[in-house]
Amino acid sequence: MVDALSGFPEWLPEQELVQQRVLDVVREQFELHGFAPIRTRSVERVEDLLSQGETDKEIYGLHRLAAEGADEQGGRGLALHYDLTVPFARYVAEHRGQLAFPFRRYQIQPAWRGERPQLGRYREFLQADADIIGSGKLDVRHDGDLVRLLRGTLDRLPVPKVKLLVNNRKVLEGFYRGLGIEDVTGTLRLVDKLPKIGAPKLTELLGRGGLRQEQVEACLALSRLELHGAGDVERVRALGVKHELLDKGLEELGQLLTASADGAAPGSIVGALHIARGFDYYTGTVVEGVLEDHPELGSVCSGGRYDNLAAMGSGQPLPGVGVSIGITRLLAYCFHLGLLQQKRRSPAHVFVAVHSEPERGLSDAVAARLRARGTACVVSDSSAAYGKQIKAADQLGIPYVWFPAQADKPDLVKDLRSGEQVTALLDEWAPAADAMGLCFTKAEKT
Amino acid sequence: MVDALSGFPEWLPEQELVQQRVLDVVREQFELHGFAPIRTRSVERVEDLLSQGETDKEIYGLHRLAAEGADEQGGRGLALHYDLTVPFARYVAEHRGQLAFPFRRYQIQPAWRGERPQLGRYREFLQADADIIGSGKLDVRHDGDLVRLLRGTLDRLPVPKVKLLVNNRKVLEGFYRGLGIEDVTGTLRLVDKLPKIGAPKLTELLGRGGLRQEQVEACLALSRLELHGAGDVERVRALGVKHELLDKGLEELGQLLTASADGAAPGSIVGALHIARGFDYYTGTVVEGVLEDHPELGSVCSGGRYDNLAAMGSGQPLPGVGVSIGITRLLAYCFHLGLLQQKRRSPAHVFVAVHSEPERGLSDAVAARLRARGTACVVSDSSAAYGKQIKAADQLGIPYVWFPAQADKPDLVKDLRSGEQVTALLDEWAPAADAMGLCFTKAEKT
Repeated sequence: MVDALSGFPEWLPEQELVQQRVLDVVREQFELHGFAPIRTRSVERVEDLLSQGETDKEIYGLHRLAAEGADEQGGRGLALHYDLTVPFARYVAEHRGQLAFPFRRYQIQPAWRGERPQLGRYREFLQADADIIGSGKLDVRHDGDLVRLLRGTLDRLPVPKVKLLVNNRKVLEGFYRGLGIEDVTGTLRLVDKLPKIGAPKLTELLGRGGLRQEQVEACLALSRLELHGAGDVERVRALGVKHELLDKGLEELGQLLTASADGAAPGSIVGALHIARGFDYYTGTVVEGVLEDHPELGSVCSGGRYDNLAAMGSGQPLPGVGVSIGITRLLAYCFHLGLLQQKRRSPAHVFVAVHSEPERGLSDAVAARLRARGTACVVSDSSAAYGKQIKAADQLGIPYVWFPAQADKPDLVKDLRSGEQVTALLDEWAPAADAMGLCFTKAEKT
Repeated sequence: MVDALSGFPEWLPEQELVQQRVLDVVREQFELHGFAPIRTRSVERVEDLLSQGETDKEIYGLHRLAAEGADEQGGRGLALHYDLTVPFARYVAEHRGQLAFPFRRYQIQPAWRGERPQLGRYREFLQADADIIGSGKLDVRHDGDLVRLLRGTLDRLPVPKVKLLVNNRKVLEGFYRGLGIEDVTGTLRLVDKLPKIGAPKLTELLGRGGLRQEQVEACLALSRLELHGAGDVERVRALGVKHELLDKGLEELGQLLTASADGAAPGSIVGALHIARGFDYYTGTVVEGVLEDHPELGSVCSGGRYDNLAAMGSGQPLPGVGVSIGITRLLAYCFHLGLLQQKRRSPAHVFVAVHSEPERGLSDAVAARLRARGTACVVSDSSAAYGKQIKAADQLGIPYVWFPAQADKPDLVKDLRSGEQVTALLDEWAPAADAMGLCFTKAEKT
């Protein structure tokens, strides 16, 4: 008996076909916007991972099993990356002379974190990231481009509606500084937890953190604001806090709300002043997305502006902005909630039946000709009664069964969805458009 | 300064675009033949990896950096997989009740080995595998199906010609047993090295391994044979060795040569009696491919029949046969040899110029309409003189530059390959078919 490993999810073929569809849409959107694919190695030097202030993430280090006194190259000093942003920044710093800036890249790879596993929180998970990194400077309009790209990509996925929440770290930091709060990072991190812990608990924690009553109240007032357009930034100003960084942040946030609204459904991108994101490297725009009907499950995508991250070892600043879709988490939620069930367990559209073992060659020939015309198919493993073969096709969720011509009969094709059986010409027949994709039985896309 | 890590190769965007093309072709072929995608976790239990007799492979174990006394779930006892076959077998054993057999899957993922890095030998590398696993039994005709699939896939890749060498472990084992050799595994492993070490060295090593002079000579005679069709198996029989297992192996090898020859160019699949493959789990057919013009570089793909591997913990045998393409190695060779160079560094077909910053909105609108019609594009980051923008497009290898209409001028498109500039209608224009793909400057596909 083999047990599953907690925190390392694996999908069944019918689920992986859904994941593949999701990844295809993501890739198509990223490429339509000119993002080039890259893959970074799975390992980074431990000091590069720790230098980003992520000492509180559980990192998996490597060691060689077989080696005595293994050197650094042998694994010691290396660890699996916990996201795709830090490796990307290192990649840019390392290959800087060979890249054209601004550099747009996308990257679809797993990442690893030694966290306590729970629904949506895994030790190995697939991420799909798109980032732009500039050389020296990167206009803030790219923040809007990335949020729009994220919005447009999510809208095309076969998943439930995702609501995007945007904010700007400068707004939070400027607001806190304007209030005279010294521990800005600590306050950011607490406020970011508002949806999980609720206002009373947040009040208690902020107070315990040393904030005065009026500071706590101002923080809570800010964190509760939702902005539905650039004009709404005045609601932040109305709280009466003044700081240069706050003004800068509100200008950027207003610009982002205007830019990202272009083409987006009303209410699908909302300013949410409690959003801070966990990573220390964000310096401006931050964004996260939650399932509209299940916000309690937490974020399924995220991103933001990082102006200092990519400077890593390279001297000159390489400011960037990026977004990341948590593919594994998003799919885990959909599967868990009973969405995205589908019947297809094979990419084949046609199951070619075999009349008898001596006639298997006829079936192989049919399959070869269908494939030559781009139709995916499998030949039956068995030459049992046709009823049994039809059952095998149905088990795989394959929509068509092909019965090769025999002396007294033409080629026949049975559509297992309708039960209809028709005569077919091998060089003309093609599957119906609606049989080509997956067969979702329930995809609550509203 | 950031140093590259030896053994962990990373491609530049222009190389990754080639890799992506290669992976797309591989995936298309695997899916046309009805193989379903799966992804297994990157880690396995150490004992599962070691139980396959691969103690001589350098395996990377995991440990949690942050955790004191981490438990097994925390990383201890887990290691990165060194191939995709063992994880697949474990996956099948684990999810057996939810899979339909024979189960055809493909899997494109990295694997890790702590080996000494050299050209083509890496510590992290991408593999593309296709396997069929049966329940209880799996007809030997699937061996031919897999070799044909491998042949057809390689023929469609933009890489130099690959020659496939096939053999059958039963032939070798039966032959050695028929000769009275006791250390069959040791002999297999030495003979497999023939192309690398040459006949004199092999003779010496076999003798040192305790084989008698006539046994050494017979082994060498067998290992030198090349079979160009099923009829050639008689040349093995002519060596005069008799054993039941040898007969069984020759029958299977003859059947494989007949089946896999269907549709393959003459000489592209050859019986090579020295091929044994390193993994202990192969029990019948073995196959490997080498670059025809550079056989000295070693195999770029491989595979074989394994009748006992998947039984792992599950009681009942799950015999399988599979093939694996070493994507990283294949591309490393091509890049190293100067093949597969290409200019595209962006998936965008169109670079939309910006006349001036106040007019950037016009360019954004052009890009949005091109994307809506499926044409990938980027908008210029700069509104500098058009000459500079054209240079930026050329640097990215993007074939077209679009100049948005202005009051006195229509939309204009410049083809950077020909230098030709034409008037274009936004809702009709499409890139030429030959500009859609990569622009190989040298692809020695002969």
